[in-house]
Amino acid sequence: MSAVSVPPPKRLQKPLVVPHRHMFGPGPSNVPPRILEAGANPVIGHMHPEIFEIMNDIKSGIQYLFQTQNNMTLAVSGTGHTAMECAIFNTVEPGDSVLTAVNGIWGERAAEMAERIGARVNSIVTPPGGYFTNAEIEQALLKYRPALFFLAHGESSTGVLHPLDGIGQLCHKIYSYFICVTLSDSVMSVLTGIDILYTGSQKVLNAPPGTAPISFSERACQKIFNRKSKPVSFFLDLSWLANYWGCDGKASRTYHHTGPVTAFYSLRESLAVLVEEGLENSWDRHQKVAEYFHRGLESMGLKLFVKDIKARLPTVTTIVAPRGYNWKDITSYIMKTHNLEISGGLGPSVGLVLRVGLMGRNSSKHSADMVLAALKDALQHCHKSKV
Amino acid sequence: MSAVSVPPPKRLQKPLVVPHRHMFGPGPSNVPPRILEAGANPVIGHMHPEIFEIMNDIKSGIQYLFQTQNNMTLAVSGTGHTAMECAIFNTVEPGDSVLTAVNGIWGERAAEMAERIGARVNSIVTPPGGYFTNAEIEQALLKYRPALFFLAHGESSTGVLHPLDGIGQLCHKIYSYFICVTLSDSVMSVLTGIDILYTGSQKVLNAPPGTAPISFSERACQKIFNRKSKPVSFFLDLSWLANYWGCDGKASRTYHHTGPVTAFYSLRESLAVLVEEGLENSWDRHQKVAEYFHRGLESMGLKLFVKDIKARLPTVTTIVAPRGYNWKDITSYIMKTHNLEISGGLGPSVGLVLRVGLMGRNSSKHSADMVLAALKDALQHCHKSKV
Repeated sequence: MSAVSVPPPKRLQKPLVVPHRHMFGPGPSNVPPRILEAGANPVIGHMHPEIFEIMNDIKSGIQYLFQTQNNMTLAVSGTGHTAMECAIFNTVEPGDSVLTAVNGIWGERAAEMAERIGARVNSIVTPPGGYFTNAEIEQALLKYRPALFFLAHGESSTGVLHPLDGIGQLCHKIYSYFICVTLSDSVMSVLTGIDILYTGSQKVLNAPPGTAPISFSERACQKIFNRKSKPVSFFLDLSWLANYWGCDGKASRTYHHTGPVTAFYSLRESLAVLVEEGLENSWDRHQKVAEYFHRGLESMGLKLFVKDIKARLPTVTTIVAPRGYNWKDITSYIMKTHNLEISGGLGPSVGLVLRVGLMGRNSSKHSADMVLAALKDALQHCHKSKV
Repeated sequence: MSAVSVPPPKRLQKPLVVPHRHMFGPGPSNVPPRILEAGANPVIGHMHPEIFEIMNDIKSGIQYLFQTQNNMTLAVSGTGHTAMECAIFNTVEPGDSVLTAVNGIWGERAAEMAERIGARVNSIVTPPGGYFTNAEIEQALLKYRPALFFLAHGESSTGVLHPLDGIGQLCHKIYSYFICVTLSDSVMSVLTGIDILYTGSQKVLNAPPGTAPISFSERACQKIFNRKSKPVSFFLDLSWLANYWGCDGKASRTYHHTGPVTAFYSLRESLAVLVEEGLENSWDRHQKVAEYFHRGLESMGLKLFVKDIKARLPTVTTIVAPRGYNWKDITSYIMKTHNLEISGGLGPSVGLVLRVGLMGRNSSKHSADMVLAALKDALQHCHKSKV
């Protein structure tokens, strides 16, 4: 038995201390106690029948959340980025043409992921806060004839809810597959043309980050299960995931990876909360709270970054960074004084906006009022240059 | 506002029920309440200063666990398989020669992962339960001149603890990098030649599955940060992870992905438990309990699958599947009658063995006695054919 040469770190002899904080940024948002407590249930095996039942519950819950009958619906054992790679790795083969719509960070990241696995990537780009018309999208689809088209439904970096009506049909007309990221639960029946849809657990679902709901259409599965090369990732190979999630019709499940069972408990509970409220009620509440919040901002003289009312995300609001202020002073002041997170921009929107997320349990007039009061206070107390 | 077409699933209207169970398989193992409770702390932001402190604590704890001064030490936001892909994706470029030592499932999976990203993969293979001599390894290294050599230190599918003394030096002599998986905390100072080492949170650390400690040597970083092509995965790109974990010396951290913050809480707590006990005490306890358990098995007339005493994992014991029985009858009987998980083989060891994991808090004489009693009971009550 050798002696240890690296001594025990003193910092681990102090107890874990986690502050309570109002999480009104673009996610993670506050997790209700019942969801946190669900995650503290005892660990059982990742292949035990009870876990398969819980996974079946999750599958049903995601089908409800996404309003889809897709059989290939599951949660990836990882974050939203893992789900994004799962979607791209499974659909795209080296040399495939990929088109990404870039109106914020997600299109950029999708392009980067597809490039890394040898796709020929083209992008259409519009400044942060904007979105694409169906005519622009059709033109690009005809020009690049992509095997895959990526679009962010909920562009959390800019606060844009992208109109989706008819885009799926455009893609299918030229044999492209349509992949889409969302962070809102405002997924409506117009989404029927989407082939792959995913989100992160820590957005409106109010679960801790660490799992990511994803759904593949029959059409997407056709492409995926007839590809010539294996996907680059064994861990994210849909044929394995489909088996682990009981989506491949086989009688038994083979060990693939050790699912994060406690994260599955939390995710299930977050879906149960959604089922309790009802999806329509949740949509309605998010929409009304967003409108209430937006009116409050405008009555303070603040400007909304997304001009087109219909293209405003009900979950993440972007506010034009107030003139004369350093946006970092505002977010820091609010964190320090109000113990409340709102954030600046991300990727292309850095410096342009403040971002406020009111999602899941945080979507309430009470939370909106807290943010409005904190902003008012910050604008009075933060340094303002005389422009 | 469209109406919902997929109705709320009834199965989510029932409360979550998770049974208590003795988890004496190869992992996950039982998670002590204080670690589960740590994970139920409130969610804060993945970029908040308190999370960076917690991540620094985790980094120190992993350095202690692995007995390494490696600066590039962190936890991957995913399972053990994610860490495995992180190691292989970052080190291997298309066309690189990779050598895997296959004496169970892990070498097979490493080969599969490396093949998928275009490596030229060769394997040395020995039957389950065996391991490789340094001479065999040197011969293969000289023959294939791999850029990367993969070996499982703790081969959980067969119960083999692979001797490691001198292997790192052999690799370095021919300019190969040495990657290694372990599930035991019996990592001793002989491991100095290892370039990449990883494990899963759900093994001896007793945290829930969902994070995976990993460490890269200075030498491994030299290769990784001088590669010609980008790794296939953006999510697992070490240059991004290094920044998120504060391992790259930069003053600020850029948003990469949303870390599973509550899983980080649990992982930190599990490392604090290890620090409290002390690594040497933990090694000693695992070793003594394993020897006690092995004596108990032998006195019942059961045979240990790994003949060489020195090559027996102190955490996962493999028992030769008892003659005349269907191994599934035994594991099912024990689950049903004793609410206790032991498992069959995995990959190459299916049908050959029963596997018992006594890890972390489950490494105690009391747990060993429970398993021995359950096995005795099963051998009396399960159907035995008259061979």
